[in-house]
Amino acid sequence: MNKIITIGREFGSGGRELGKRIAETLGFAYYDEEIIEAIAKRSELAEDYVRQVVENRIMTYYPITIANTLTAAPGDSLYAINRSIFTAQTEILEEMAQKSDCVIVGRCADYILEAYKPFRLFVYADLETKMARCRAKGEDAEASDRELEKKIRSVDKARAQYYRFYTGRDLSDRLSYDLGVNTSGREIKDIAAALAELIKALT
Amino acid sequence: MNKIITIGREFGSGGRELGKRIAETLGFAYYDEEIIEAIAKRSELAEDYVRQVVENRIMTYYPITIANTLTAAPGDSLYAINRSIFTAQTEILEEMAQKSDCVIVGRCADYILEAYKPFRLFVYADLETKMARCRAKGEDAEASDRELEKKIRSVDKARAQYYRFYTGRDLSDRLSYDLGVNTSGREIKDIAAALAELIKALT
Repeated sequence: MNKIITIGREFGSGGRELGKRIAETLGFAYYDEEIIEAIAKRSELAEDYVRQVVENRIMTYYPITIANTLTAAPGDSLYAINRSIFTAQTEILEEMAQKSDCVIVGRCADYILEAYKPFRLFVYADLETKMARCRAKGEDAEASDRELEKKIRSVDKARAQYYRFYTGRDLSDRLSYDLGVNTSGREIKDIAAALAELIKALT
Repeated sequence: MNKIITIGREFGSGGRELGKRIAETLGFAYYDEEIIEAIAKRSELAEDYVRQVVENRIMTYYPITIANTLTAAPGDSLYAINRSIFTAQTEILEEMAQKSDCVIVGRCADYILEAYKPFRLFVYADLETKMARCRAKGEDAEASDRELEKKIRSVDKARAQYYRFYTGRDLSDRLSYDLGVNTSGREIKDIAAALAELIKALT
């Protein structure tokens, strides 16, 4: 069976960079954005809409464009459309898991791929560090500190809701993961190789 | 400055064994029971009483024997006595931290030795694993599963209360530690060396 590492993360915690570096160190495939592209293709929904559903809000907004084709048209209930996205996501993650050893960021992969006994990493940090990391990326340059803080809290809350909706579990429950890494005040590049070695030893 | 590793742990999670093995691997001193003995000596209180205060309950029971001498006699308020235990504990941890690199289990060491920037490890597991580990130790052999579960929950609750009382922090808050390790279904001997290497790389 292929080795799967799943990464849950807080917004701005450096989880994505950490996942990418761990994948590089171990020679594993790395999946993040590719999953959204693949879901969009398979479900025949607009990529931006898929991104909105899987990254941000669940059944909250009506997007401007939902469907690329008439397969899943606005006539369908939003619930059915979101459900079909999750179904596509499940199939795609299964295929990725069967293809090779891999690192998968987010997407309830720990739950969907439970049968593969993935190593489940959770990456988090204090608010100060998360804000500094967002600032360093140059996104949200216009946002005030207060606005940025609000955004971070809101993305984390939305992810937790999404996770709870589809898995029935609590993302913040430490029993949901094998290892929790606090990246407060740390550079991801300084900790990635050592973490990769640990995960290699434990899987 | 010496390197300090502090270990917070759930009852039955294997935190003590893990701490001991990490200390052995890294050649660090290991402190656990020695702290209680030292506190008893310094505060001139009975060792069993000190153990009860620092391990179990805070200001709940009146012990049969409190003092070995008249320095801290039953005439003193229980609050003052418990406070004096915490003061002795603080002094002793400071001395240990100054002596050499070390691993310290429990005792709010992460808080007391904050100035040393300790690496803070938290060890936890699911109830099933914790019960199995307690059973394997042979303690509580007479207890039913239900009684053992109750004991585990009660010790964890007491530790959390103790930690909150003296530090003002939440022991279950993941920002209180640098790394959280889920030992569910794992043997401590299989994970200790790899964890020691990671901690070495991060400190």
